[in-house]
Amino acid sequence: MLAIEHPIIKAPMAGGIDTAELIIAVNNAGGMGFIGAAYNTGEQIRAISRQIVAQTERPFGINLFPPEKQAPRPEKTALALEAVSPFYRELSLPLPQLEPCKGFDFDRQIEATLESGASVLSFTFGVMPKDVMAAARERGMLLIGSATTVAEALALEAAGVDAVVAQGSEGGGHRATFLGDPQASQIGSMALIPQVVDVLNIPVIASGGIMDGRGVAAALALGAAAAQLGTAFIPCPESGASAVYKEALLAANEDQTVVTKAFSGKPARGVRNRFIDSLEQQPEAILPFPYQNELTRGMRIAAGKAGKPEYLSLWAGQGLRSTRQLGAGELTAQLIREYRAAARRLSRYGQGDS
Amino acid sequence: MLAIEHPIIKAPMAGGIDTAELIIAVNNAGGMGFIGAAYNTGEQIRAISRQIVAQTERPFGINLFPPEKQAPRPEKTALALEAVSPFYRELSLPLPQLEPCKGFDFDRQIEATLESGASVLSFTFGVMPKDVMAAARERGMLLIGSATTVAEALALEAAGVDAVVAQGSEGGGHRATFLGDPQASQIGSMALIPQVVDVLNIPVIASGGIMDGRGVAAALALGAAAAQLGTAFIPCPESGASAVYKEALLAANEDQTVVTKAFSGKPARGVRNRFIDSLEQQPEAILPFPYQNELTRGMRIAAGKAGKPEYLSLWAGQGLRSTRQLGAGELTAQLIREYRAAARRLSRYGQGDS
Repeated sequence: MLAIEHPIIKAPMAGGIDTAELIIAVNNAGGMGFIGAAYNTGEQIRAISRQIVAQTERPFGINLFPPEKQAPRPEKTALALEAVSPFYRELSLPLPQLEPCKGFDFDRQIEATLESGASVLSFTFGVMPKDVMAAARERGMLLIGSATTVAEALALEAAGVDAVVAQGSEGGGHRATFLGDPQASQIGSMALIPQVVDVLNIPVIASGGIMDGRGVAAALALGAAAAQLGTAFIPCPESGASAVYKEALLAANEDQTVVTKAFSGKPARGVRNRFIDSLEQQPEAILPFPYQNELTRGMRIAAGKAGKPEYLSLWAGQGLRSTRQLGAGELTAQLIREYRAAARRLSRYGQGDS
Repeated sequence: MLAIEHPIIKAPMAGGIDTAELIIAVNNAGGMGFIGAAYNTGEQIRAISRQIVAQTERPFGINLFPPEKQAPRPEKTALALEAVSPFYRELSLPLPQLEPCKGFDFDRQIEATLESGASVLSFTFGVMPKDVMAAARERGMLLIGSATTVAEALALEAAGVDAVVAQGSEGGGHRATFLGDPQASQIGSMALIPQVVDVLNIPVIASGGIMDGRGVAAALALGAAAAQLGTAFIPCPESGASAVYKEALLAANEDQTVVTKAFSGKPARGVRNRFIDSLEQQPEAILPFPYQNELTRGMRIAAGKAGKPEYLSLWAGQGLRSTRQLGAGELTAQLIREYRAAARRLSRYGQGDS
């Protein structure tokens, strides 16, 4: 359906990780890259897409967040400011002003996406407005939504998407949950994927905890049409992650991540550090999205530049011992070799009478 | 190594689920059954083993808990008694006496296990004492430990086990965690299995969220030597689970389980119900294992008989939409057909140049 050679997708990762170089390398090695563009301006989306189109003929996708009814600006922010202030002080930064949240300019993002040359519009945190989906279809784009439960997958199918990404609890970054309780929606990939496959009539893309070709083969065995990997690509030289973020992932283990609202106000999985531990002790000091995101942004940017992982959102999945430091093209080629080897290894079980 | 025809293991499930009939049916269909015998007396272990040996020549295993330094008897139990008392009243039961906990008679359990004819001694919640492992070896038994992290898997290998069960966060029943924080040890199977496989020199058995042959094939793709299923076998007519427990599992969905200490004092995954919700609101009222287990036992037994799922420990994994009501032999045969079909389906990916 996606006209890719191999069932390997580089997950969209918003916040500067997804460079054109990363996506071009994945595409030209036989996978498919997505731009996590939810925090980008229309102009940024145009710029990165132009680069990609110029250097690969293979399809790529763009991921955005549907516009959300923003939580009202919190009246009481003193507690939240107090909770983050020690970290701002340690970095010698002025305390953040919680300025009126602009949010992102969704209309410009969509406009740029429709004109980008991308083959797929994918989305996280819900369903795109009908007119946006219709406009993407008119351009010949495919639509892909993200689900963490069967109910969410069914809602996306009913809304008319072409495929669903099923995000297992192992996955790094924000939980895509948009119906019900994010805590109850932490379902591991081994359980989630086949249950989603069984209820849908459209293809399922497995994500969450997949780090190598064995994981890709496992996803296919569970009935997925393709596997999506995020964390595995963060340490690549082509990724825009800061050096300190890459080092932290390469050094971390499988039991060092947590799901926290500390950085953005929405639950997301990342490597546990001092900032998370401090905020988790006072959950009442965490503002709703996007205000908490605004509140911690200055700290995160400064910490990335200063090389201080204790203040950074080190989004990552649970497969951390399997991180590799390879170029994105070589990693993709390696994933292809590995999943084909796993498939061959498995084929002996299918032989003989049954 | 286990001399079983197919890489399919019925997980040990302590507390009356594992009947001889269940294990015989699984074995004779080409899988391998384990008795969860941790709450059994030596005499009970002898009785069930005799039945199994008489009706199948295929290997079976017995699972026990290593003796544990018991937490001191809590001095303050008023809060805990108060928390469970409404449920006892609703069932018209006298309030439980928190009698001196006898624990289980480990020496008799081991004695019976060594003479049982079982091929494997497996264990959960740590490492067996050296003399016990040596005695089992002398009898020609294999040793299998249970791990929820890479560190635990390495500790088990260092202690000399022959294989390790890697329990993903999807799994039902008690978390096998014995080092570190059970919360941090909730790693999904997709991430956990390959990371454990990569560090060990002995075979890994995948468990957690596997409900059908696609899951078995996925476990093999991830590098496991076999797959272990528990929840899938609970609804079988041969299982000793109460009718109300079976019905609850057949009706429940993937997002309805939680990990709770409410029933036993140790974290375990089961279908959320009124008792869990009530106790989770006052975690300080939950006694350590085995005292909480004692405290809720009378309630659970009465609730099973009275057909009241709201007071029962409905241990279950996250694959609940995939439960099937089949005889255990037919379910095993179906799992074999399915994993072989999945392997054949996958084999087309392994063809051609690479």
